[in-house]
Formats: sequence, structure tokens, C-alpha cells
Amino acid sequence: MKPSIPKGTRDFGPIDVNRRNYIFDTIRRVFVKYGYQPIETPAMEDLATLTGKYGDEGDQLLFKVLNNGNFLRKADKKALEAGDSAALIPSISKRGLRYDLTVPFARFVVMHQNDLPFPFKRYQIQPVWRADRPQKGRYQEFYQCDVDVVGSDSLMLEAELAQIYDEVFRDLQLPVTIKINNRKILAGMAEAAGIAEQFADMTVAIDKLDKIGIEGVREEMGKRDIPAQAVAKIERMLAVHTLDELQPFFSESKIGQKGIAELETFHHYFDTYSPTNQVAFDVTLARGLNYYTGCIFEVAAKGIKMGSIGGGGRYDDLTGMFGLKGSSGVGISFGAERIYDCLEELNLFPGHSRERLRALFLAFDDVSHEYAFRCLNRLREAGIASELYPEPVKMKKQMKYANNRNAEHVIIIGSAEMESGRLSFKHMATGEQTEKTLEEIIEALS
Amino acid sequence: MKPSIPKGTRDFGPIDVNRRNYIFDTIRRVFVKYGYQPIETPAMEDLATLTGKYGDEGDQLLFKVLNNGNFLRKADKKALEAGDSAALIPSISKRGLRYDLTVPFARFVVMHQNDLPFPFKRYQIQPVWRADRPQKGRYQEFYQCDVDVVGSDSLMLEAELAQIYDEVFRDLQLPVTIKINNRKILAGMAEAAGIAEQFADMTVAIDKLDKIGIEGVREEMGKRDIPAQAVAKIERMLAVHTLDELQPFFSESKIGQKGIAELETFHHYFDTYSPTNQVAFDVTLARGLNYYTGCIFEVAAKGIKMGSIGGGGRYDDLTGMFGLKGSSGVGISFGAERIYDCLEELNLFPGHSRERLRALFLAFDDVSHEYAFRCLNRLREAGIASELYPEPVKMKKQMKYANNRNAEHVIIIGSAEMESGRLSFKHMATGEQTEKTLEEIIEALS
Repeated sequence: MKPSIPKGTRDFGPIDVNRRNYIFDTIRRVFVKYGYQPIETPAMEDLATLTGKYGDEGDQLLFKVLNNGNFLRKADKKALEAGDSAALIPSISKRGLRYDLTVPFARFVVMHQNDLPFPFKRYQIQPVWRADRPQKGRYQEFYQCDVDVVGSDSLMLEAELAQIYDEVFRDLQLPVTIKINNRKILAGMAEAAGIAEQFADMTVAIDKLDKIGIEGVREEMGKRDIPAQAVAKIERMLAVHTLDELQPFFSESKIGQKGIAELETFHHYFDTYSPTNQVAFDVTLARGLNYYTGCIFEVAAKGIKMGSIGGGGRYDDLTGMFGLKGSSGVGISFGAERIYDCLEELNLFPGHSRERLRALFLAFDDVSHEYAFRCLNRLREAGIASELYPEPVKMKKQMKYANNRNAEHVIIIGSAEMESGRLSFKHMATGEQTEKTLEEIIEALS
Repeated sequence: MKPSIPKGTRDFGPIDVNRRNYIFDTIRRVFVKYGYQPIETPAMEDLATLTGKYGDEGDQLLFKVLNNGNFLRKADKKALEAGDSAALIPSISKRGLRYDLTVPFARFVVMHQNDLPFPFKRYQIQPVWRADRPQKGRYQEFYQCDVDVVGSDSLMLEAELAQIYDEVFRDLQLPVTIKINNRKILAGMAEAAGIAEQFADMTVAIDKLDKIGIEGVREEMGKRDIPAQAVAKIERMLAVHTLDELQPFFSESKIGQKGIAELETFHHYFDTYSPTNQVAFDVTLARGLNYYTGCIFEVAAKGIKMGSIGGGGRYDDLTGMFGLKGSSGVGISFGAERIYDCLEELNLFPGHSRERLRALFLAFDDVSHEYAFRCLNRLREAGIASELYPEPVKMKKQMKYANNRNAEHVIIIGSAEMESGRLSFKHMATGEQTEKTLEEIIEALS
């Protein structure tokens, strides 16, 4: 049997894991600094928790877990006879794999509402699973890194989340643009153009701007029966670059004015901070057809062609789906897989992981192998990541291992070294080789 | 809808996550120091990879993932008509959830054998899933922490793994006994008692010693048709405490002598190290009916009633199940959930997590809220985990949040504080309250 893994899933070797942890650790450190607390939820949720939350397409992309034991006993006979897979599912599968971190978070908040401090500021870094058709950069198992607050509508939190974006990408040394807009501004645009009831159609069209250009958006709005006059007005609004330019359009739109006021309050807080990255109002930012109701964010890497590497916004009724009404939430997410691809392409990963092997002992024979093991104990006592090749086999084989293992230093021990107490200490990258006592080596590596 | 989570699964709130990470981080730090490298494998494996590796019971406890789309189209008609759930599975489910970390590791080594340095030293800390009946301390989703080497039969590695056990529990301040034995010694016992072909029966009986006592083991061996004379001899061997006492029994057993020699070589290496915990030869340690062929380990916490919190050993043919023959492996595992329970019961968790909120700002009104946000930026610039209550609501409500949030310090700002530049700085645990400038506060918290 030749083993394989499911399509769309991946094994991660040591270099991958260390690089991924570099990203997660950087993100986590900033989350913690901003007062966010970690939670973790189970990989499997009740299918009832997940179903209906992600649209019809989402329901189809949920991984369902077969009930254990004799699941056919309770199987829906009608669905079986009709050969109707979708109708059969509820009777043979009670659990599904987590599809995102937002629905489990809402479920968590509702279940534990009596034990949580509100506003509740949480972060969550865990894998999710989607039965998407695998393709370059799209996997069936991938990590999400989410940070959200529930239970406050203060715009200070939007400012704080924009700061988190700025700090994480500053620390990763990946230059980005942080785009910001407000769904109330989009609602204002629809109102100002006299098509308030076609808000969703307009938003879906605008959301495609990056892919299809302004002509495409114009065409799309036409197809969706938005009158030409309204389309023309929307186009004029899409061309503005500042809130001031937008203001005159909203003289008759309360919701549009509210959107502008919210962004002004955001800036009131945010401008007390000196960002490293560009933070820009972008009236064309729409964030598709989703639950956002206030500020929205999206992050794009500079100098590299890559979809958005982060996004988020405010949703006025996060926990309503589980019966807890009126709890406003705001949050952002980091696209760890795409950030990985950016850092790799731009060569921004640190040269050496914190987990690097600092020293590898190689021994010529049984006696020096024992001696080397004692030296090894001393290095480890001093907290230095180190190892000894487990047998005194041919030096060529041991050196090959040292290279494959990417050891920082090699320490070679034979009878001469044992006698003199001076060990051969080689820096692998430079090839520089010196003779040092064990104490000197420990000092050099500490 | 009142939300819930699947039986046997758990949500982890901030305190749980931080405590669990304390355990994982401690384990990981020691793994890295000993030169082990991280890998991660997908949560879902091909069902063909998992099936048949854990015995019949294990196959039943695997979580199977339903194929997506119209899975009934390819369903096995005969199995459907017969209502045979087990027979139906292969035709409607291609994937299963990871059941342990050993089989995925073997699969990983075989798939990536051309890219790995051998001997390959890896660690892996990931959740696994088992459809076990949930009960106290047993969950359907739980973490395993495994460290293994494949591709060397040097007993230096056994010594190193025993050191890892010792260091991890030293660092966790949890006193343990690390028991060691060798399956060749058990084989020698069977040979010396003249029942070499009943080795498995004898081992299964001995494995129950802790639960049923020596009388129970005697009875169990009798039931399994081991002659009374052999049982008596085995009992005499089970009473020894040292390798020296065991030696005379093995004058005719080569495999028994080999087992003793291996443990002597283990000690040859291990005794160069000064353990904090007790490391003891235990001739009654059997590790059940499994794939071990050499040294075996088990760890028990001292001063607390709890099953083993770690175990492992050498297996001569780890990767054989996937076609790569003759690769010897040795590894140990940490039972993170039970370790958690021990640390909790013995009150050994550190008082404060590294992720603690150092300072929480509270403001009396809008103006001081803005001022506080500026101060907050300064603390965060200095790398201090801090936050500001997002709105200047009633102080009582804000103080309640400060308590629930377990903030280390609270900094209260109103118009008087803004005017004087001296902020009210309160240590929550002691109640001590002082007036400090922002610079003094930053210095105090750095």
C-alpha cells in the first residue's frame, strides 16, 4: 500500500511548522498586547449549529461526520429510497467540522454568557475545514486567526483593530494597505442614488470592482436592473477619495451621514497612533454579501499580486442566530495561508527559527561517543538545543546528517579531542573551525 | 435554538487555554532542546490509512467523514439493502479523523522519506478524535504530545527520552516515577517459564497487575491455560527489583539476556545524567498488547491517584505497515489531559499566565476617555498588555469588568488626573493605590 493524504490537505514538515508558528506567534503576541484572550472550540460542532449559517453553498461545503455504530438503523427510509443524499444527512450525521471561527464564537458566547466578562475580547487561532474544490492556494484544511469583541459598539474598538493590523504587518515586515469603509456609507450611496431597496445588488456589483473594473461594475448593475441614472450617480460617488468629497452626496441620506460620522469617530481615535502602514478610506470596499453593518476592513499586501490577506468589520447582531439579541460585535481576521505565501515570495521569513539546532555532536568511536554524550548533557543543562548523532558510524554519513539537519554548529570528538579536552567546533554556514574547551563552547552558544 | 456542543467535546475559555498552553509550551521547549523537530499532519486521513491499525475496536471508534455531494450515487447497494452500516462505510466515506499521532507519523515518514534526515527526530502536538463513550477524564477530542525517532536502534535514544520525561516533569514541578522495562525481558520470562508461545497471554495478564493484584494475575494466567508451575516461576520473577536478581532466571534465555543487556546499555548512557525524578526498573511493566519490541516506559504521578500520564517504547518495525521495512522507532507520549488534572489537583499551575492583562484603563467621561486612549497607546508601544474599557460608562460597571477580567492593575482617569498628569494606579490583588505619572507607570510595568 502506497500511502497518501486526502486531496486539499497538507503535511507540514519542520521548516513549514516553524514558519507557520512564526506567523501565528507574531499575530498572537499583538492580540495579547491589545488585551484579547484566547478561546478554543471543538473541531466538531453539532450539525444544527453549523447548518444554515453559510448559505446553501456553505451547507454543501460542510464536512459531515458519520454517526458511529449502526447508523443505518435510524436512517431516513424515504430519503434512502429516493436516493436523496442531502435529505438523508440529518438522520445519519449529527456532527460537522468547524467551517469558520465566527459561528463557533457566537455559539460559545451564548453558551457561556454568564461566565464571560463583557465586552468580551477574544482571539482564536484554529484550523477550519471546507470541502472546496482544491486549487493553488486553496485548501480543505486551513487556519483562521480571528480577533473579535462582542458587547460594545464603541468605535474605539475599530481603531484598535486597525492598529492590530498595522502592528502585525509591521512586525512581519510585510508592507500593506489597510482599507477601511463603512456599510452605512454604501447604504447611503444606494439611498442617494434612489435605489435604497437595491442595496444588495449594488454591493455585490461593487464588490467585483477589483476583478472586472468599473465598466464591469456598470454592466453588472445594469443587469441587476439598477437604472442608468442611478448607476451614473453611484459611479461619481465611487470616484471620491475622501469623506469630505462624499459629504455633499449625502445631504438627504441620514444613514450615509451616520456612516461618515462613524468613520470620523474612528479617525478621532486612530489618529492618536502612528501607523507604519498606509490606512486608507476606500469607498469602493464592499466586503460582498455578508452580515456587516458598520465599519469594514480589508488588507492588501503591497508589491505582490495576492488576494486580500485580511478582512473584517462590525456586525450588529452576531449572537442573534443563537437567541442572544442586540449584542454588537466587531472583528478582523488574518489569512494565514496567504500571508505565508507573501512572506515566502518576498523572502521575509527570518533566516533561522527559534527552534534551530544549535550544536550537533559527532563521534569517531564508541569511547568518544560516550564522552560526547556527557558533553551533550552539559550543553542541554545550559539550555542549548543540541544532539549527538546516535551512533559512531562513518564520519561522512554523520556529516551528511549535519547538513540535512541544518545544524548551526558541529562538534567533532575523537580520541585526540578527548585527550586534549579541546573539541573541534565548526560553524556550518561559514565553515569556520576552531578548537575550544567544552566550557568555551557553552559560553559561545549561551 | 439553544446551542450545545457534541458530547465528549469541550470549549476552552481563556484560563483553560492559557493553562493548556503552559503544559504544551513546557513540553515543546524540552523537545526542542533535545533536538526534536515539529511536524503537523492533517486532521483527516484517508480511511485506508487508518483502518486496521487499531484493532477491531479501534476501527469502530474512528470518526468517519461522509463523502461530499451526492454520496448515495456510489453507495454499495448490497450493503444498503442488507442494512449493514459497517459494510456501507467504504462506499460513502473516504476520510476519517486522526485517531492517534503514531500512524500518521509512520505514514508521513514513508511519504516523505526522500526529504527527511535520518535518523528522523520529530515531535507532534495535535488533537486526535475517538468515538469513545464519554466519561470523567475521557473525551472524544483530546491532545496527544508525541516525540519519536525513526531510523536508529541506538539505546542512547531511550536514555534521551527518559531524560525528556524527567525534565518536563521537573519543569512542571510534578513529581513522578518513570518506570522502565524491556519487552525482551518479558519474552525471557515467558521462555524461562517454558511458555514462550504463550508470551501474549502472560503479558496481557501482567498488564492488569495494578488493577487486579498478584492474585488476579495468577488467576488470569491460569484461565489462559498457563500451567501452574510456569505461573509460580513467573511470580518469582515478577518479585525481583533489580536486573541482578533477574539474571539467574535467564541463564537459558538468550532473549531475556538481550533484554537485560539493553537495559544495562540504557543505564550506561542515562546514568551520566542527574535525574530529578525517580527512574526505576519495574519488571511488572508490560504496556499491554501492542507493537513494542524493546524498552518500554510508563510515568506515574506521585502523591495523586491517576492513571499513567505518559508511556512509550521501542517498536522494531514502525513504518512496515506502509511498506518501508526494517526502520526501528522509539518514542514516548505525554498525556496532556491527565497532566492538566494532576497540576490542577495539586495546585501547580503558575498563578499568572504570560498572557495576563497588565493594565486596564478606566475613564470617567468622554474627554478623559480620549486622554486614556492616548495613554493606552504609550503602554502598548512599550509592549505592555493593556486595554481601555471601551466606553466611559458608570465606574461601578467598569470596576466589575476589571475584576472579572482579572486585570493586574487598574488606571483610573478623570478630569483631576488629566489636570495633574498624575494617574490613579491600583494593584488589584493588594488593593494598593498610588498616584503616578504615565512614565512612572510604564517604568513600573516594564
